[in-house]
Amino acid sequence: MPNTRQATEIAFESMARCGALVRPAMRAAVDTLDPALVEMAEFALGWRDACGAPARGGGKGLRPALVLLGAEAAGAPDEAALPGAVAVELVHAFSLVHDDIMDGDERRRHRPSLWKAYGTGPAVMTGDALLALALDVLGRERCAAAVGLLAEALLDVVGGQAADAAFESRPWTGPDAVTVEEYHAMAVRKTGALLGCSAAMGAVLAGAPPGLAAGLARAGCELGLAFQAVDDVLGIWGDPAVTGKPVFSDLRRHKKTVPVLAALAGPRCDDRLVELLTGAPADEELREAAFRIERAGGRAITEEMARDRLESATGRLRALPLSGRAAAELLAVAACVVDRHR
Amino acid sequence: MPNTRQATEIAFESMARCGALVRPAMRAAVDTLDPALVEMAEFALGWRDACGAPARGGGKGLRPALVLLGAEAAGAPDEAALPGAVAVELVHAFSLVHDDIMDGDERRRHRPSLWKAYGTGPAVMTGDALLALALDVLGRERCAAAVGLLAEALLDVVGGQAADAAFESRPWTGPDAVTVEEYHAMAVRKTGALLGCSAAMGAVLAGAPPGLAAGLARAGCELGLAFQAVDDVLGIWGDPAVTGKPVFSDLRRHKKTVPVLAALAGPRCDDRLVELLTGAPADEELREAAFRIERAGGRAITEEMARDRLESATGRLRALPLSGRAAAELLAVAACVVDRHR
Repeated sequence: MPNTRQATEIAFESMARCGALVRPAMRAAVDTLDPALVEMAEFALGWRDACGAPARGGGKGLRPALVLLGAEAAGAPDEAALPGAVAVELVHAFSLVHDDIMDGDERRRHRPSLWKAYGTGPAVMTGDALLALALDVLGRERCAAAVGLLAEALLDVVGGQAADAAFESRPWTGPDAVTVEEYHAMAVRKTGALLGCSAAMGAVLAGAPPGLAAGLARAGCELGLAFQAVDDVLGIWGDPAVTGKPVFSDLRRHKKTVPVLAALAGPRCDDRLVELLTGAPADEELREAAFRIERAGGRAITEEMARDRLESATGRLRALPLSGRAAAELLAVAACVVDRHR
Repeated sequence: MPNTRQATEIAFESMARCGALVRPAMRAAVDTLDPALVEMAEFALGWRDACGAPARGGGKGLRPALVLLGAEAAGAPDEAALPGAVAVELVHAFSLVHDDIMDGDERRRHRPSLWKAYGTGPAVMTGDALLALALDVLGRERCAAAVGLLAEALLDVVGGQAADAAFESRPWTGPDAVTVEEYHAMAVRKTGALLGCSAAMGAVLAGAPPGLAAGLARAGCELGLAFQAVDDVLGIWGDPAVTGKPVFSDLRRHKKTVPVLAALAGPRCDDRLVELLTGAPADEELREAAFRIERAGGRAITEEMARDRLESATGRLRALPLSGRAAAELLAVAACVVDRHR
């Protein structure tokens, strides 16, 4: 593994290279949508602002990069993997659009969420269209294994969202409280599954041996869990100017995340913290809650979890028979991306 | 073609036989969902009421019956087609759940719609889960052609919904008015595509020649258009006790449907009708609007359209090299189902 500075440079260059490959393919796919849906799809993908003006935003394209790098690392050309890269990015966009409706989140990536900008019905429809498009793009490849992989991930993503939503009505403490283990099982499905699918997709489309695809899937899933842990930290302590979401957003919404669950699972229950996380706390109370969570070790535990998961992901990648440059890029991207916000 | 009475009997027996095959497979599929989603999925499928009590309701199962009969008519056993039957029924349920959210419809099949009973977020999630399950069930078959067929239909369904929604903001008369031809193009996608996919699915899963599958798809699409025309008539003149929706529901929502578009496309524009269909009309005004639409020929034109489409569907089916009993059942089901409400 190169040193950190080198790794960061490799990761940036690799992501830029993958982005340049994926963008035109994404554009071509979106242009096949019904005209009534294109503007909203563009907004959801960060290509257009709510006034309809072109924008250069959107996600960092981690998932499609994983697909392309996975294919390259399995010895296949990018072309074979491009439809898979487009499909996972579209499924990711679909999941964010519907997630924001379910969670009532009004902000996403420094902008209003899609339902806030265009209304709930149109946002439901746009999410459906992004998903349908993903299946159509991948379905055209006539690679049943790739479609099966995506369908499985999709079922996991939705099941994970359902589990996450079900956590909301459970108490912070007592026998019915959500455990860190339950949270973990939820995150494997909600976040891990699609990253695992992305990492394996290239190998599957390239016709690589099933063992290689399975190994990449497991590494991708671990990376997803590292990601989720970083996200949970940012959801409480992240700078809104960086995250694009309101300050303390997860606490305000009573979201069960690892930092809080870990803090409350400690030997002495912090009754004051539970009190602060109930009802509609003011900013001052949220600040105090964040302080108490950190003091109880919630932040450190979650950051350690992110490091552990990243290590596990990179360990798995190193153990696989992957080809040179792409394997190094995969490792660099994995390491680098966890340091930053999605 | 047997006489009408015989055809009705054949259709009922055939639908019952198909239903008995599909129900356990549907049950098994739904049971693999996340526990937090099962109850809502059961409600969406009509297996459970809003209090959680078991119910025996739901759709008539036309789409899965088409899949099984299509497979049989192509000379394949039911087992080969069962995953396809489950998948199309799940996609149909998904589309109804999300459609009701987009349209703000509060009633479906004599009951509250899912979003009205459980909330918008949970209904979005349940729709997503039904769709993900459909893909998973079909994806497990490792039949890329079948998944491609479903993905294409799905894209059409969503595109058709988008076109339908876009019609709402257009005027009833003048150069920007929706034409019957535009409506037709929308209905081909919104309703025709999934029925076409259902009719072809069995043949595709059975590995029948592509020409046969394509012929079945076209017949199914025509059947869907007949269906949509019947639905449009019921949306205005249907008995709420039968349709399960409020009286004059389509008129109340200013929905652009064939009876109204045809009535307004006549030589003399009925200004009073346009006036009645604007704003929030009272029941008395809706009654007058329905009367005026019927007097202008809107009902007769739509009923004729349904008959024409049905004839076209049955003509196409008769022209295909289908095997005996199943072909007769397909024709009987097509003829009978258009006479009744979904």
